Amino acid sequence: MSREKQIDDADDAAAEREVREVHARFYAAMSALDIHEMMEVWLCAPTAVCVHPGREALVGFARILESWQQIFASAASMSVSAGEELIVIAADAAWVSCVETISITFGEEAISAAARATNIFRRTPEGRWRLIVHHASPIPARAAEEWPDVIN
Amino acid sequence: MSREKQIDDADDAAAEREVREVHARFYAAMSALDIHEMMEVWLCAPTAVCVHPGREALVGFARILESWQQIFASAASMSVSAGEELIVIAADAAWVSCVETISITFGEEAISAAARATNIFRRTPEGRWRLIVHHASPIPARAAEEWPDVIN
Repeated sequence: MSREKQIDDADDAAAEREVREVHARFYAAMSALDIHEMMEVWLCAPTAVCVHPGREALVGFARILESWQQIFASAASMSVSAGEELIVIAADAAWVSCVETISITFGEEAISAAARATNIFRRTPEGRWRLIVHHASPIPARAAEEWPDVIN
Repeated sequence: MSREKQIDDADDAAAEREVREVHARFYAAMSALDIHEMMEVWLCAPTAVCVHPGREALVGFARILESWQQIFASAASMSVSAGEELIVIAADAAWVSCVETISITFGEEAISAAARATNIFRRTPEGRWRLIVHHASPIPARAAEEWPDVIN
């Protein structure tokens, strides 16, 4: 293995750790209803895009932040965790494909759902990874017959 | 403006043209039900991800190609066009956020729908841009009262 390839691999491994970290911070910010953390996670850019499950796209940092403020103000509690993460690092860009497990309580109403998400990150000139695209869409509920036989 | 910045800008402009071109090829391949073109557009990678509107994710080039083959075999005709494209170039990665206008005929049944898509591309060592993530999700139908007053 060439020295250059080794450096590339080491940089990718470090980048992957950092992307996993900011990805976890994004979901922790949701679960903590913490708007300041949410603001830290996103890249402040007019090209930032956020698609909440089943909704139209929000474009631009200001509009996206406003929507998280509205969600956090309405939700009594919220727990969102990411699983089945598939991460790709491409120099100063990276993306994570994952499955979100969502529980939200609005007043008396509790919602449980699953969503597929594509999250794209950029590395800033200061070396910080920030979210620039979050696209989530509902995963259809599985019919009973689609579950593996072992569950029956 | 520095010479380096000028070169960066020129490279980005060329990259944007190339990404727009392969993006258009992706939608043209759908509308032509052309599996060979579809195969050319995608990056042959195990990390490729495709989410059709309202469906679960397909992971890996082989599985994705199989699904397009199934769609093309079932559809009598199909027209999908992309609009409202927002493009970001990040060196050898790029992504396009867009709205898809979809018309598909299966036998006697015709479906018209709109979807929001996030499409991520990578530039190969040979300098070709290839699709690595396609995530589409249905856009909710607008209620009559949500349309601008001018339409009434």
